[in-house]
Amino acid sequence: MIKVGIVGGTGYTGVELLRLLAQHPHVSVAAITSRSETGVKVCDMYPNLRGHYDTLAFSEPDAKQLGAMDAVFFATPHGVAHALAGELLDNGTRVIDLSADFRLRDADEWSRWYDQPHGAPALLDEAVYGLPEMHREKIKNARLIAVPGCYPTAVQLGYLPLLEAGLIDPSQLIADCKSGVTGAGRGAKVGSLLAEASESMKAYGAGGHRHLPEISQGLRDIQQLADIQQTANTQQQPIGLTFVPHLTPMIRGIHATLYGRLTAEPGDLQALFEKRYANEPFVDVMPAGSHPETRSVKGINTCRLAVHRPGNGNTVVVLSVIDNLVKGASGQAIQNLNLMFGFDENTGLTAPALMP
Amino acid sequence: MIKVGIVGGTGYTGVELLRLLAQHPHVSVAAITSRSETGVKVCDMYPNLRGHYDTLAFSEPDAKQLGAMDAVFFATPHGVAHALAGELLDNGTRVIDLSADFRLRDADEWSRWYDQPHGAPALLDEAVYGLPEMHREKIKNARLIAVPGCYPTAVQLGYLPLLEAGLIDPSQLIADCKSGVTGAGRGAKVGSLLAEASESMKAYGAGGHRHLPEISQGLRDIQQLADIQQTANTQQQPIGLTFVPHLTPMIRGIHATLYGRLTAEPGDLQALFEKRYANEPFVDVMPAGSHPETRSVKGINTCRLAVHRPGNGNTVVVLSVIDNLVKGASGQAIQNLNLMFGFDENTGLTAPALMP
Amino acid sequence: MIKVGIVGGTGYTGVELLRLLAQHPHVSVAAITSRSETGVKVCDMYPNLRGHYDTLAFSEPDAKQLGAMDAVFFATPHGVAHALAGELLDNGTRVIDLSADFRLRDADEWSRWYDQPHGAPALLDEAVYGLPEMHREKIKNARLIAVPGCYPTAVQLGYLPLLEAGLIDPSQLIADCKSGVTGAGRGAKVGSLLAEASESMKAYGAGGHRHLPEISQGLRDIQQLADIQQTANTQQQPIGLTFVPHLTPMIRGIHATLYGRLTAEPGDLQALFEKRYANEPFVDVMPAGSHPETRSVKGINTCRLAVHRPGNGNTVVVLSVIDNLVKGASGQAIQNLNLMFGFDENTGLTAPALMP
Amino acid sequence: MIKVGIVGGTGYTGVELLRLLAQHPHVSVAAITSRSETGVKVCDMYPNLRGHYDTLAFSEPDAKQLGAMDAVFFATPHGVAHALAGELLDNGTRVIDLSADFRLRDADEWSRWYDQPHGAPALLDEAVYGLPEMHREKIKNARLIAVPGCYPTAVQLGYLPLLEAGLIDPSQLIADCKSGVTGAGRGAKVGSLLAEASESMKAYGAGGHRHLPEISQGLRDIQQLADIQQTANTQQQPIGLTFVPHLTPMIRGIHATLYGRLTAEPGDLQALFEKRYANEPFVDVMPAGSHPETRSVKGINTCRLAVHRPGNGNTVVVLSVIDNLVKGASGQAIQNLNLMFGFDENTGLTAPALMP
Repeated sequence: MIKVGIVGGTGYTGVELLRLLAQHPHVSVAAITSRSETGVKVCDMYPNLRGHYDTLAFSEPDAKQLGAMDAVFFATPHGVAHALAGELLDNGTRVIDLSADFRLRDADEWSRWYDQPHGAPALLDEAVYGLPEMHREKIKNARLIAVPGCYPTAVQLGYLPLLEAGLIDPSQLIADCKSGVTGAGRGAKVGSLLAEASESMKAYGAGGHRHLPEISQGLRDIQQLADIQQTANTQQQPIGLTFVPHLTPMIRGIHATLYGRLTAEPGDLQALFEKRYANEPFVDVMPAGSHPETRSVKGINTCRLAVHRPGNGNTVVVLSVIDNLVKGASGQAIQNLNLMFGFDENTGLTAPALMP
Repeated sequence: MIKVGIVGGTGYTGVELLRLLAQHPHVSVAAITSRSETGVKVCDMYPNLRGHYDTLAFSEPDAKQLGAMDAVFFATPHGVAHALAGELLDNGTRVIDLSADFRLRDADEWSRWYDQPHGAPALLDEAVYGLPEMHREKIKNARLIAVPGCYPTAVQLGYLPLLEAGLIDPSQLIADCKSGVTGAGRGAKVGSLLAEASESMKAYGAGGHRHLPEISQGLRDIQQLADIQQTANTQQQPIGLTFVPHLTPMIRGIHATLYGRLTAEPGDLQALFEKRYANEPFVDVMPAGSHPETRSVKGINTCRLAVHRPGNGNTVVVLSVIDNLVKGASGQAIQNLNLMFGFDENTGLTAPALMP
Repeated sequence: MIKVGIVGGTGYTGVELLRLLAQHPHVSVAAITSRSETGVKVCDMYPNLRGHYDTLAFSEPDAKQLGAMDAVFFATPHGVAHALAGELLDNGTRVIDLSADFRLRDADEWSRWYDQPHGAPALLDEAVYGLPEMHREKIKNARLIAVPGCYPTAVQLGYLPLLEAGLIDPSQLIADCKSGVTGAGRGAKVGSLLAEASESMKAYGAGGHRHLPEISQGLRDIQQLADIQQTANTQQQPIGLTFVPHLTPMIRGIHATLYGRLTAEPGDLQALFEKRYANEPFVDVMPAGSHPETRSVKGINTCRLAVHRPGNGNTVVVLSVIDNLVKGASGQAIQNLNLMFGFDENTGLTAPALMP
Repeated sequence: MIKVGIVGGTGYTGVELLRLLAQHPHVSVAAITSRSETGVKVCDMYPNLRGHYDTLAFSEPDAKQLGAMDAVFFATPHGVAHALAGELLDNGTRVIDLSADFRLRDADEWSRWYDQPHGAPALLDEAVYGLPEMHREKIKNARLIAVPGCYPTAVQLGYLPLLEAGLIDPSQLIADCKSGVTGAGRGAKVGSLLAEASESMKAYGAGGHRHLPEISQGLRDIQQLADIQQTANTQQQPIGLTFVPHLTPMIRGIHATLYGRLTAEPGDLQALFEKRYANEPFVDVMPAGSHPETRSVKGINTCRLAVHRPGNGNTVVVLSVIDNLVKGASGQAIQNLNLMFGFDENTGLTAPALMP
């Protein structure tokens, strides 16, 4: 049994960590912090936790207390993990950061997209991007994990087999993504009210969204790793990605619809995907012709994929669905923790999706 | 490990049994029947079950096969369990019926409400009404369980402490109940379409609903058991219940708002409820002043209750929420199974609710 | 063509006034105020108004400007109309207040429920409660209208025929009401987020809600008016109302389920309701056995009613649906304006409901 | 005042015609047919029509009765208008067909996509595609109108300025479209149940959808008309469109996200769109940087557009929203009728959208 802490536990990824960890046999949540809710019991704020965490209460973040944990999750806005991660690592505590703080390897690029200086550039070298389907071995030995964003997870897993195989033009990628409203967090914003966001659909950030550089970096990594494996191919084109997110009237779920232009006859795309993900516990390639529904992953850590080639033409379409709060955040964080501590990768993550 | 079968597994209570039993360490689902879907794999119809039941397929109902099970669940329309239950019981198979077939002890009354003759009146004597909070000991030794309906569960658990204590006038009960649309089943009906049922609220069956006689019978049982315990009080008034169900634009959940007229100073109602349910694993009395939300029980077997006495007047209001597919159907069925087979009562039913 | 102003136009009742008045042939909106949004065009905040109010912008509230209007609507939080109404009336401007400021005739009672002193007790005498089905003649000559609250409108119209006829016990009324989330306003509150309020149902204010004294006062008025008409009957019982509102996962709509205990054989309840409302342009008594849906009044000023007597027993159930933003607020305000200025009562209010 | 009939009035486009025509000062609905509902009053099926069509009832389709109308709308499944249109036209009745029967000019192509022979190929020559923004003059003199499909309307209006200006590569178009569930009609299908379709997002028809050939034909028309206007340019590339529709958990609305690759520096895209649609009563180009919401057109005949060029790169993104039942069906049908009969184009179509 390991002891973990959660920094910034009042948001949706925080409560989702609690929900999932309640089922984890080897993890005990020993601390959860929130400056604004100090003293409030988590089950008073989240009644679904009654009977599961009857004594755990929010506390002021305290580096000493957190430094006594085996691992600490950051479920915080960006900037917070920058300030605390170093001290925790020095104490031997592993850090699993669900925020954007360590996702971009280039501190300057981070600074441009987040409009503030990077607070811990010295840690970037050892931060591991926590997408197990790409970086499993590194994760096992990591001290500091940058859990991928929700859109980046869905998009990268969808493009991965195609980019690895060099089948699509990397300069002409289009990712049209739809997210439930929990993606916008638990902050009280008019645009997230039921009366505003339900019975409607809209794009946002069409001119540029913070997940764009993260996805682009991840897709470049896929290219480079593939290149290494294939030893040769030095003429890789740069990633050119158009990414348009949409706000969808549902609580959870991301549906990424990914378009790529084939550069050659691709052979059996279905087989390509099935082979690539045959041993992945949390990627499910649906049968040919399928259209995965986001509800089929509601509450679980699975990414379901389907690949189509409409009219046998030169465009390939990948449909990729995840639960933004699970595989897109808290579930993937626990998957990382399992890898880091040598537990079975799916420990605590085995329940079926809630459907209907 | 026991082997169970599910008759009529294509509906919502069927898939919910599968979802919950996937987490049950002592139960293996060995057969699931559906005439219309014979040969179809359950995970092809319900993609959330992919990875959990990859080979289980619907089969024709076969008494011999089912008779080899330790227990059989009926997740069928009314009338089906009547026809099969006897033969299964003769084979030593326990029967847990989620339909209405054995809920009413009076075959004639059943016949009036369901517009057809009762198909198995001889079995009524041994059928046990599967509300553990009322009949736990009988359930442990039962061979045939009538799992309570969804509305009846929420209503009875809410009125139970008040009727047992003789605090309210049983002839003036009003149960105003709100249900999500899964209560109407998975049948393709125009009224259940998203385009018809969402963004709207309506009552139905205000003139009389089939759950009315079941609730009334249950409330009479509460009176009588209380009477026995208190040895005296022979002047109990008859139950007079007005029950109005409403269709609510959500997938799961029942919210019962229960009104009773106090017949005397009730003392501490909060304490009364807390004491009554102190040892019940699946009834959660919320703190005084609470308003339980149906989402706080989404996917779980818990009934959450709150009791109010507005303006300190002579009306008591109980708020009772359940998930209609879990405590109102499949979860309660498994709770019964656990009791019948000597497992811990909450085996397989320990996950927190999915919220948000 | 008359000129009107709207004070506090950024909320849902403000934009709803604009939506409805865009169709009114005799009204021009000449001013709309909002301190926080001064200078912003209304169509920039509410894109549905593009093409209808392309130049109208929010301005600072200015008594002189408003005093030049024929009428001013207050679509403000409570307290605001208290401060401004007197000056406007002195200028000869009619005031139609959608807030609670002038609904209760007793300033002390108002003060208790709203936790602040009443700001304009001298105006209470001439304020007319703007429920046309009760007070049409007074409204025609009024200078100051208190537009009824949303719940009070649905509840009073449902009980009206029964109380007038003296058929139910006024001391045992139960109003179980369900409202869409726009009833909570456009404020950014966590509890109104789609991620919190959708897929769930909850009661609130079970211990006491500000609409309770308003409804009780209105029901007493019904009794007294009926008493006067019948000259005699001096033994009227006091109103005893239990009112429990519920938050329902939809944008618009109120469904009031009203329970009353019959004190005598009621005769033909359906005929009673049909006769009472035969000449009312905005009350629609549905055929016997109906269950009105809130969506059938989405966007319109109609209240649809159905009356049931379950099992021919001693409880009568009235189902009453309105759109909380229209008959429950802005539509009723315009109905009042039509009466006050001698327009046809339904001017600008004739479109059918949006369904589906 | 003209007299119109509606064939197949029980579906969503039928009731929407009735809702909109209730506000039309020059049109009287004299007949509405439905084989299955003959004798039922329309207001009994659609309570929102109570008070608007209190006597109109569904009748058997009768060519003689319909032939006495000035115009007949077909709100039917495909194939029905084929059978009746000819006879009506011979009687001098104009036909406005909301189905797909006359949208494709190539009878063989129609036959391939709809799996049955074309039933009225002789009428194809005179059928006019009822997109006023493209074919206004032809519509004015037409006897037979093929009202565009919902997706095709949103997609064509979005691409129109770009294709006319020759700014994008027509062989690399991607239309990622999201539709509310009324797009699937009022048929009782499991997939359209609230319990199945809400809280979820899915693509469908990724391999090929019947609206694809209609859109492609329309985009070719745009190219050709532009070519004619510019007299020269004979090297137009063929249309290559990838079209992926998605089922979105809302009642109404289509959001089309359209991607095109720029073939040259485009200049001021915002100005291009504004100029093209400056005189169009039902196309609203939003300010630069906007993200139109589908709810901003709920219930109205407007298409709102925004154009983006992310990162100033070589991909242009157009966001196009309509109400699928109005501009995508019944509203556009009435817009066509207005043009055909010389009424103001926006007659009966002037109400603002219902928002929130």
